[in-house]
Amino acid sequence: MTPPPSVLGQNQYGKAETRVVKVTREGRTHHLRDLNVSIALSGAMERVHHAGDNAHVLPTDTTKNTVFAFARKYGIDTPEDFGILLARHFVETQEAIHTARVRIEEYAWDRIEPGPDQRRFIGAEEIGHSFVRRGQEIRTAQVTYDGQDFEVLSGLRELTVLNSTASEFRGYAKDEYTTLAETDDRVLATSVTAVWRHSWSGDERPRPHWDRSHQQARGHMLRSFAETYSRSLQQTLFQMGSRVLAKRHEIDEIRFSLPNKHHFLVDLEPFGLSNDPEDGGVYFAADRPYGLIEATVLRDGATARIPEELTSP
Amino acid sequence: MTPPPSVLGQNQYGKAETRVVKVTREGRTHHLRDLNVSIALSGAMERVHHAGDNAHVLPTDTTKNTVFAFARKYGIDTPEDFGILLARHFVETQEAIHTARVRIEEYAWDRIEPGPDQRRFIGAEEIGHSFVRRGQEIRTAQVTYDGQDFEVLSGLRELTVLNSTASEFRGYAKDEYTTLAETDDRVLATSVTAVWRHSWSGDERPRPHWDRSHQQARGHMLRSFAETYSRSLQQTLFQMGSRVLAKRHEIDEIRFSLPNKHHFLVDLEPFGLSNDPEDGGVYFAADRPYGLIEATVLRDGATARIPEELTSP
Amino acid sequence: MTPPPSVLGQNQYGKAETRVVKVTREGRTHHLRDLNVSIALSGAMERVHHAGDNAHVLPTDTTKNTVFAFARKYGIDTPEDFGILLARHFVETQEAIHTARVRIEEYAWDRIEPGPDQRRFIGAEEIGHSFVRRGQEIRTAQVTYDGQDFEVLSGLRELTVLNSTASEFRGYAKDEYTTLAETDDRVLATSVTAVWRHSWSGDERPRPHWDRSHQQARGHMLRSFAETYSRSLQQTLFQMGSRVLAKRHEIDEIRFSLPNKHHFLVDLEPFGLSNDPEDGGVYFAADRPYGLIEATVLRDGATARIPEELTSP
Amino acid sequence: MTPPPSVLGQNQYGKAETRVVKVTREGRTHHLRDLNVSIALSGAMERVHHAGDNAHVLPTDTTKNTVFAFARKYGIDTPEDFGILLARHFVETQEAIHTARVRIEEYAWDRIEPGPDQRRFIGAEEIGHSFVRRGQEIRTAQVTYDGQDFEVLSGLRELTVLNSTASEFRGYAKDEYTTLAETDDRVLATSVTAVWRHSWSGDERPRPHWDRSHQQARGHMLRSFAETYSRSLQQTLFQMGSRVLAKRHEIDEIRFSLPNKHHFLVDLEPFGLSNDPEDGGVYFAADRPYGLIEATVLRDGATARIPEELTSP
Repeated sequence: MTPPPSVLGQNQYGKAETRVVKVTREGRTHHLRDLNVSIALSGAMERVHHAGDNAHVLPTDTTKNTVFAFARKYGIDTPEDFGILLARHFVETQEAIHTARVRIEEYAWDRIEPGPDQRRFIGAEEIGHSFVRRGQEIRTAQVTYDGQDFEVLSGLRELTVLNSTASEFRGYAKDEYTTLAETDDRVLATSVTAVWRHSWSGDERPRPHWDRSHQQARGHMLRSFAETYSRSLQQTLFQMGSRVLAKRHEIDEIRFSLPNKHHFLVDLEPFGLSNDPEDGGVYFAADRPYGLIEATVLRDGATARIPEELTSP
Repeated sequence: MTPPPSVLGQNQYGKAETRVVKVTREGRTHHLRDLNVSIALSGAMERVHHAGDNAHVLPTDTTKNTVFAFARKYGIDTPEDFGILLARHFVETQEAIHTARVRIEEYAWDRIEPGPDQRRFIGAEEIGHSFVRRGQEIRTAQVTYDGQDFEVLSGLRELTVLNSTASEFRGYAKDEYTTLAETDDRVLATSVTAVWRHSWSGDERPRPHWDRSHQQARGHMLRSFAETYSRSLQQTLFQMGSRVLAKRHEIDEIRFSLPNKHHFLVDLEPFGLSNDPEDGGVYFAADRPYGLIEATVLRDGATARIPEELTSP
Repeated sequence: MTPPPSVLGQNQYGKAETRVVKVTREGRTHHLRDLNVSIALSGAMERVHHAGDNAHVLPTDTTKNTVFAFARKYGIDTPEDFGILLARHFVETQEAIHTARVRIEEYAWDRIEPGPDQRRFIGAEEIGHSFVRRGQEIRTAQVTYDGQDFEVLSGLRELTVLNSTASEFRGYAKDEYTTLAETDDRVLATSVTAVWRHSWSGDERPRPHWDRSHQQARGHMLRSFAETYSRSLQQTLFQMGSRVLAKRHEIDEIRFSLPNKHHFLVDLEPFGLSNDPEDGGVYFAADRPYGLIEATVLRDGATARIPEELTSP
Repeated sequence: MTPPPSVLGQNQYGKAETRVVKVTREGRTHHLRDLNVSIALSGAMERVHHAGDNAHVLPTDTTKNTVFAFARKYGIDTPEDFGILLARHFVETQEAIHTARVRIEEYAWDRIEPGPDQRRFIGAEEIGHSFVRRGQEIRTAQVTYDGQDFEVLSGLRELTVLNSTASEFRGYAKDEYTTLAETDDRVLATSVTAVWRHSWSGDERPRPHWDRSHQQARGHMLRSFAETYSRSLQQTLFQMGSRVLAKRHEIDEIRFSLPNKHHFLVDLEPFGLSNDPEDGGVYFAADRPYGLIEATVLRDGATARIPEELTSP
């Protein structure tokens, strides 16, 4: 008996992780954009899966070439703008491609200049072509285009923050496996992964100022993390998300994945030492296991579209 | 003007990456199961997000304790069985928890014994308590329970395979950015990430033999990779998926994420050397960028349920 | 025939990677030091190796406890001072321990405060207990004590820098395997690993101001990287080292490991595009292989003591 | 006042991590060697450091090309033989190069074939061009040539082994910071990094059979780990080293770096559960901190030459 036939479901392909660096010169002052670009194309791809017929398959090598060529032809204004250019290109020039998704990571660079303390000793001014990688969080963007609408997700990951007080964890549910002691003064630390969706969906409306929007959303998350007296990481998460939505009208939805980077107060009693946070605590920064808090915060009336798995570790 | 209120969307929380090792002794012969368990719980969690009220929040520390306690009370038959135990427990014992998802990675260990060649020299027999970590792929399982039905996804990742011939790439679409040369003899290599969904959804039907099912699915993927004369990685992917569905009736859906680990034939002409694969090729194994081919293969009539992002890098 | 006996050579043991975070409170302003401490002890350890006799073995668990207890008792002024405290303790309190080496990594945190641009929008002041991990380079320190002298090595790693011009590579040796084209305008980028040795060896002389010394050495490296018109990465390395030695009299020796993080100018001619750096180049940031330049720079008359392998990747 | 001049110390340069895969065909049966090759050259390099004069600098790009060309011209018999070829080449053809060091990692591949259990179901035979990466330990080799003598170090890393009993830790030194409880039945696990030095130093003597030597050394380490009733990891280390030296006369020295991968018996008493290892223990596999045991074992009369840092994490 022949087994029942298999059916092709959702599928996509493209070149992942093309590392493109664009230098722009304004006289002796240079500017950098340093991206990692991943292309995923979908469409009429049955024949290649069923029979290895590549007639509809634009090579992944070509998608890589296009990234480099577009960086030269159009420059890289922002990750979002660059993603829009690329996504539109593939859908509009390849009949078999119905949807294009462009994912971008951006690595930030600062100019090398003397710090406040070094200026006295070194005395030199900034040099316009010298940079040091900032190394903090990674900025992310994802642009999807289906021939009609764009969906633009901006985000960041690996933004590690810590409050050394103003965090407690009490009044939780208990069962027979609960041994955790309540605390009213703990370290709260997390490495923020956040993705937010812009309401903008096409050039009939003006585009957001992507860089400013990103900088502001990041700033509001940081301030909200710092200013919230936290009874749980969930509460902090919701505060961060609500503040971004309240302050940034171009954003309709935001999703967070927040690992609880546990800092355990070390028990120093066996050594005759107190370890009271009030008095300057000593903590063990643990790796695994870790709590993981994930949630979406939506503008009232908006539809949730950010996939749950997108932000997961 | 007050900004419109924010709404809580999908959310989940729990302890991620509890590393539990269970040793079972049968006389002097020991057995190991070595797991990394991540719990994610969802339910009536508005109050903790909105107000930091933890009354419905079973601590993530408790979910960790439960993993260890259950390993002792019930043992670990398979990752899937262990996930079913845990998922059911949280939903059935905590009223506020409506859905539990348990993700497990398993690391395989082999017994230390002399290889065929060493037996002559060493002469010793296996020792029942000594193991060497296999180190090849990681086995994965995900069990979700919503109080009614279970969904069990099995899988693996980091299974790296290579065909040194029997692969070509020709007849593809070309545009102005296409420079790739066609080839009829290339190395095809990938690191397989695969997740497959079992039709089993609860104990009204007998459970699959999870270990055997996994071993067989893995074997069929490997054989299919090896036996397919490949005109594209998409074709190979579909062959791998179809074969698993044809041979394993307990599986309804399978999704792959296959990076094309490029092995480029090195141009040795500048050194007066040929580099014909027929004659033993020299290849450069590249890191980035890489092609990335992702697709779901479904049993005819089945509904696709494996999230696209679940298998992505 | 009995095989000739084996002899124990250099050996050391201890607890690696104890992650200790010390919070100090000054009213509502908190301070953080976030360290990763690894202890290695050597001495009269024949019996434990030969016969499993642990009488001379202070458990590695105890060395971990000591790290936490000392953080509470003495605080953490600088990584170097903390290393000196710990190294002296083990040698002076355990007769069998003749040498102690303490390696420390430090992770920097900045306060969360509004950036220049956000201040207008957000208006809030800094909160004294909220931090964001800087994420740039990792500061390192290694203190060795043999009961007589201390040796203090300070350093850093993962400080990634880039010059987008003012770098060439020409006039090099050529053989039959040379295909590289000369260039007079390339991107020069590296991820600096540097370790430097202080002349200070004990408290008969005043200790350097470790934090200031580190900050200044780092600044001089950065400035030197930026200001050098580079004909080779070796030349840049030597400039960086010489400047540190010239400006910082407390330092006698410095060793660098500088991967040449290649940024290749993309060939865009097939697409009818120029790619002239003068006009804003597009580069491919490559991963592997990479050039690797390593060297020690010494104050004239000083003895080289930093092991070559210490800075290698 | 001019600062005293700086002096160039030990230095080396070359291309790191050239990923070369060589396929050899014997009819339809193919063979793979998959290497990661790093070249480091030293010699008369003052002028490039002091003045950026590259006349003595063979480009790192050329060393990469040489790796590929030699793989084609001479094949890759073993990592050690390939390293000897390359090291000799650079010293003998470049007058300014006085010493060449070649480091190689090798990744092992197995043929895809049905396992014992699958043969019944699948029935197919092995296909000569299909491979699965073994994924266990990485084999290493380092060849140094100074124009006179070769030094060959073979080794491995990431060979993870575990004994689920036959390990204790008692009778250790105690001080005021000691809280560890003694145990007579613990899990002992480590990830072996080992490097051993061959006495062979040039072709006036026959070369060892490198592959067999490696396989045997690895086998003796594994057997020794399994067969030793361990009172400390130091004792196990010395047994492993002694056995390799006793059984393999071509090896004069071996150095190990053995992290103690702690598996802590979980305290299940709060849940009314025993957790007696005799009865099948439940362990928490910890990440950090970890004990780290490092030592050299020497043939009596041999000189220690393996740098301490070479094997360190």
